[in-house]
Amino acid sequence: MVRPTDKVAARPRGMPPGWTPAEAAATWARSHPPPFSPRALQATLDGDEHDLRRRLRAFLTSHHSLFAPVYNASLPRFRELSLARLVAICRAGEGAGGGSDERFLSVRDFAAGRASRVLAAHEIAGLADGSMATKLTVQFNLFGGTVARLGTATHHDVGGPPGVGAFLDAIDSCREVGCFALTEAAYGNNAVEMETTATFVGGGSGGGSGRGQGREPGWVIHTPRPAAAKLWITNGACHAGWAVVFAQLETGGRREGVHAFLVRIRDAGGQVLRGVTIEDMGVKMGNNGVDNARLTFDHLWAPRTALLDRFSSVSPTGAYFSPIPTPRTRFLAVADQLLSGRLCIAAMILGTAKLVLTISTTYATTRLSVGPSGASDTPLLSYQLQQRALAPLVARTYAANVLNNFVKRRYSAALAAGGSGLSWAAVVALCCTVKPYTVAVAAETVTVCRERVGGAGFLAANRFGDAVGFVHAGMTAEGDNAVLRAKCAGVVVELMGKGQAGRLYEGSGFDWSGAVGGARFSSVSPLPAGDVTSLAGQAAAFAARERHLFAAAAAAIAASAGSRSALYETLMHTHAMVLQRAAVALAERLALAALVAAEAAAASPADRAAWAAIRSLYALDAMARDAPGFLAAGLPPAAVVTLDAAIDKVVRGGGTGCAPSGVGPCLASYVDAFGVGELTMAPIGGDWLAFSAAGTDGELPPGGVARM
Amino acid sequence: MVRPTDKVAARPRGMPPGWTPAEAAATWARSHPPPFSPRALQATLDGDEHDLRRRLRAFLTSHHSLFAPVYNASLPRFRELSLARLVAICRAGEGAGGGSDERFLSVRDFAAGRASRVLAAHEIAGLADGSMATKLTVQFNLFGGTVARLGTATHHDVGGPPGVGAFLDAIDSCREVGCFALTEAAYGNNAVEMETTATFVGGGSGGGSGRGQGREPGWVIHTPRPAAAKLWITNGACHAGWAVVFAQLETGGRREGVHAFLVRIRDAGGQVLRGVTIEDMGVKMGNNGVDNARLTFDHLWAPRTALLDRFSSVSPTGAYFSPIPTPRTRFLAVADQLLSGRLCIAAMILGTAKLVLTISTTYATTRLSVGPSGASDTPLLSYQLQQRALAPLVARTYAANVLNNFVKRRYSAALAAGGSGLSWAAVVALCCTVKPYTVAVAAETVTVCRERVGGAGFLAANRFGDAVGFVHAGMTAEGDNAVLRAKCAGVVVELMGKGQAGRLYEGSGFDWSGAVGGARFSSVSPLPAGDVTSLAGQAAAFAARERHLFAAAAAAIAASAGSRSALYETLMHTHAMVLQRAAVALAERLALAALVAAEAAAASPADRAAWAAIRSLYALDAMARDAPGFLAAGLPPAAVVTLDAAIDKVVRGGGTGCAPSGVGPCLASYVDAFGVGELTMAPIGGDWLAFSAAGTDGELPPGGVARM
Repeated sequence: MVRPTDKVAARPRGMPPGWTPAEAAATWARSHPPPFSPRALQATLDGDEHDLRRRLRAFLTSHHSLFAPVYNASLPRFRELSLARLVAICRAGEGAGGGSDERFLSVRDFAAGRASRVLAAHEIAGLADGSMATKLTVQFNLFGGTVARLGTATHHDVGGPPGVGAFLDAIDSCREVGCFALTEAAYGNNAVEMETTATFVGGGSGGGSGRGQGREPGWVIHTPRPAAAKLWITNGACHAGWAVVFAQLETGGRREGVHAFLVRIRDAGGQVLRGVTIEDMGVKMGNNGVDNARLTFDHLWAPRTALLDRFSSVSPTGAYFSPIPTPRTRFLAVADQLLSGRLCIAAMILGTAKLVLTISTTYATTRLSVGPSGASDTPLLSYQLQQRALAPLVARTYAANVLNNFVKRRYSAALAAGGSGLSWAAVVALCCTVKPYTVAVAAETVTVCRERVGGAGFLAANRFGDAVGFVHAGMTAEGDNAVLRAKCAGVVVELMGKGQAGRLYEGSGFDWSGAVGGARFSSVSPLPAGDVTSLAGQAAAFAARERHLFAAAAAAIAASAGSRSALYETLMHTHAMVLQRAAVALAERLALAALVAAEAAAASPADRAAWAAIRSLYALDAMARDAPGFLAAGLPPAAVVTLDAAIDKVVRGGGTGCAPSGVGPCLASYVDAFGVGELTMAPIGGDWLAFSAAGTDGELPPGGVARM
Repeated sequence: MVRPTDKVAARPRGMPPGWTPAEAAATWARSHPPPFSPRALQATLDGDEHDLRRRLRAFLTSHHSLFAPVYNASLPRFRELSLARLVAICRAGEGAGGGSDERFLSVRDFAAGRASRVLAAHEIAGLADGSMATKLTVQFNLFGGTVARLGTATHHDVGGPPGVGAFLDAIDSCREVGCFALTEAAYGNNAVEMETTATFVGGGSGGGSGRGQGREPGWVIHTPRPAAAKLWITNGACHAGWAVVFAQLETGGRREGVHAFLVRIRDAGGQVLRGVTIEDMGVKMGNNGVDNARLTFDHLWAPRTALLDRFSSVSPTGAYFSPIPTPRTRFLAVADQLLSGRLCIAAMILGTAKLVLTISTTYATTRLSVGPSGASDTPLLSYQLQQRALAPLVARTYAANVLNNFVKRRYSAALAAGGSGLSWAAVVALCCTVKPYTVAVAAETVTVCRERVGGAGFLAANRFGDAVGFVHAGMTAEGDNAVLRAKCAGVVVELMGKGQAGRLYEGSGFDWSGAVGGARFSSVSPLPAGDVTSLAGQAAAFAARERHLFAAAAAAIAASAGSRSALYETLMHTHAMVLQRAAVALAERLALAALVAAEAAAASPADRAAWAAIRSLYALDAMARDAPGFLAAGLPPAAVVTLDAAIDKVVRGGGTGCAPSGVGPCLASYVDAFGVGELTMAPIGGDWLAFSAAGTDGELPPGGVARM
């Protein structure tokens, strides 16, 4: 062996002695001052309920000891914690002597034209705890919203004098907790075929079996076999005293389709009632603070008034009345709360995308890696790799956000207008594409961000594990993403058939002349070899793709009209992918229009430039991701091959400084506009080195980790 | 209200009274008999170590009570369970009176030309428990492999007479458990800059500080500050008695770079030694059976012989000898076990992709949804949506599998040939692209499969949660995927510069004339407007894309030659994405070649047709996914817009029956060839309805759930 005397090893350079992540963040911030106003962008992204959002953020932050995430805990502890957090939010106004106006949200908000309040509360609550937010959405939308909407005074006033709505108050304050028992083990994908029965039994006589006999007139609710067990029932395993149970209504030997019943499942002391069996579904891949249950009924008796009778009723003698003619349409009416449920999920999951982008971008300003000399002196965020990974996701999250804002406004307006007709059908289509789109953006965001923060993201305390579980729940909750996209496309094709596709854009102020609602579908002309970096070129390309796909879907459906089996073949075997892509194209086209509207409404040239950069990056990225789709719709191949360089340009901008036209170097300011702030609650969003040395066995230290 | 007397509601149809998932699976199997031999395909996919794989599968299956997954458990219980499982595998041969030949694997396998045995054991073990497999890979590859390879007799014989290798035996049997302490808190992305020091202190004198003084000559191992804490140390929090610690070696006031030291960290009774501080890293987003630790050293003394001295040594007087001239190249030599580590991870994660595809496909034959009449009578697998989601993932998993087989053979051959030189450089490039490629395929597979099985996949018992965590660990373990791709591309460009890129294909039998190793890069000619469905057209397109990207990378690197800052700018700021894409293109081109080789080697026309269908689907899908890349490389736009229809055709085949040319209807047979069998261990891979009704609170019942 030889001693290499001619090579003197350098001392490793390391970080400077006093180096901290906070210092690194401050250095980055000093060299990248935002040229636009993150607060102005935030106001547009938040869109509505600014005061509520501010108050709820402040509440969660000021109750840190309750809302700080916990990771090493038992299943029972996770569930109690999520309930305690929900209760705290629901009763926050009480100490101040306030009534329902002081609450953060109420089941009455939907009818009062304040759906925006419920949805904003979902988004902010989801930042703190996905499990708590899931319990919240069941309590306020699925359970509470159904009782409020499908129920009548009988149901609203349980536990109090008539006309006061004591039961709705008790839901608002979480003094009564409910669950929503729709899904059955074998019919999660075809609820209208469910097997649970609710059989009307007259007083003393009864055509029913067993335990219902000899009591006053009422319902016998029964699970005929395991395939009909109610599955995934949130709040069911531990906390719900009440359930909205969906069952096939039978009276006088006739089945009238699926109806909703408000029944007790536990007594006031928490004991499960006779006739009800509740099993815990146990550990899940996420949201373990949610107590999902399997519910079965063995001839459970419920009073006649258990039927939520806004749309259908049964007389004391068992006579059935409904203005809605068929069981299928009755089911659609009772399952309507699923529609707002999709907006609730989109709101929560949008918050998750904002959260992980905030964590990842902040960390990338403080995590150093190899610089030009080989020393660890260069923040990850300066790398092309990091900017190209994160910037398009930030742009897509902006796009999903303004799209959600648009659909929320449309939903509220249509609800206020009575919730029916062609405008309502358009809103159904919008809700059925905004949820899948938002969740898909968030799912990719969570995965990519986790990978780009490296091993640190694998630590539970950095919140990616919870985020992954939450987005997976979102993919299939309130309707499988793919099923919803197919429904969206189907509704749009129906509207097209009636010459009413323009209703998708109703009241939006968008220029939709080139899109589905504004053109004849037989005339898809090739796009000019336009500039994909201009708004005009982008808008034309998005509109052309949307038209192209909906034209194909409409033609296929038209060709199979009149034959049930031919239509099934089209929808399920030959054109399923076309419907999927059409729904995505619609969502992406609407998001583009919403970004353009945000740009137009911005108050300063710098803010307008920021919106323009986000819009352009979003559009270029979408074109690159679906190059075959845009090509097929007429985008010139020469334009497709320029997309990568165009994306590079809008990401890098003029160099390493922060200017609106360079989204990458400005990322910290763009995510600042998400307003996550103190709710980041992840060590790598703060001084991760101090956290690592704190000896807390992976848990947050008391007081949390201060964010950068 | 009106009574709709003219509409008589149909009774819901439900499943037939005797319906079970097992019956549904049997019905599907009867109507879709495999036209090819799944066992023959499996033999090719397994590739090597057929007997070991069979024995290990049988061992895991026959020890069901130990290996059946558990979900609702505490962190300590998860860790003890993973250790118990690892110990059972390590000592399986002992009861039969066997020596090391009876073992499933040994740290000696690498040197004995049996790396294939270690890698096969990884894949099969990973099917049962990712945490256990992670502990296994640290024990056998990172820790054991390093001791075997960098250590000498002193280290191999600890605890026994010279020449026997008692310590290696103890590693094989898990009687000594070790960990691998490389990564530091602030240097996970730049290990060569680590700050932990190992300072040689002579007997009695010592230039060292504190506790090292007054003892026999040896090393003082020290953590200077929190940034230098060893992080993520698997086996560290609970089980390791020994650590291979990487530190900056210093003797006589000179630093000689990073070296590896074998040190005790716990005594035989499990007590942590003085000078060592171990903190538990706590809960993670997955692999919670792995006990990751944070390790710091406070002037820990270790004997002179602690240095693993295969490549470098220090005399009793502190004189340093090494045949390797620079600290950086010494680091590469000691970190070499990371290379096999990448193959270990690829093997484990490949198993995960096979597992989730098996679960998802089986479930899709038994889960019924809406049929033509509206009744729930149609298996999900008959839907275009399900086939188009799953079939390309099956094809990509086949591709990743045969690519892994190719790289494993190349690695073994190069290791046997001494592990150096240009062929070794080619193997480094291959390992650095096969791990990212395999993990990326698996990550998408897990996500899509979870979504396509619906809510059932959210239940922990169905194993998607563990799979998601495991693939996330794989993305960044043993080198961030993106960093490895960049390294791969850099090495290939170096080989190109020397006219040696053909070494990538050495001994493969592949026709690589059109690829990186076989063409001049200045002459990228446009592709003919060929048929993207033919092998010739596919091979030409893949080769063209590979050439195009490596030509761009090579040109950019050549243009910045001679200037360190210009090269840094190229690699980190302007061409980072090109390097990423080039590495992917290489992996995909090699996988295509490996699929072609599998087809050529198949014994029957039906098996050849099966391989051809998989190959074509894989190629078409890859082209559709990277349409801009193929367009830029000369694929005619007219061909790009035909990809979707071509994919449809190979997925659907001639109709609903099972023929090799229709991958979709044959999916159950294609995943049968993955050989997961009884190791499926997920309720939805069996009678999920019985599981749902079993009342086990989400845990597997005793005896598990029989697979279909």
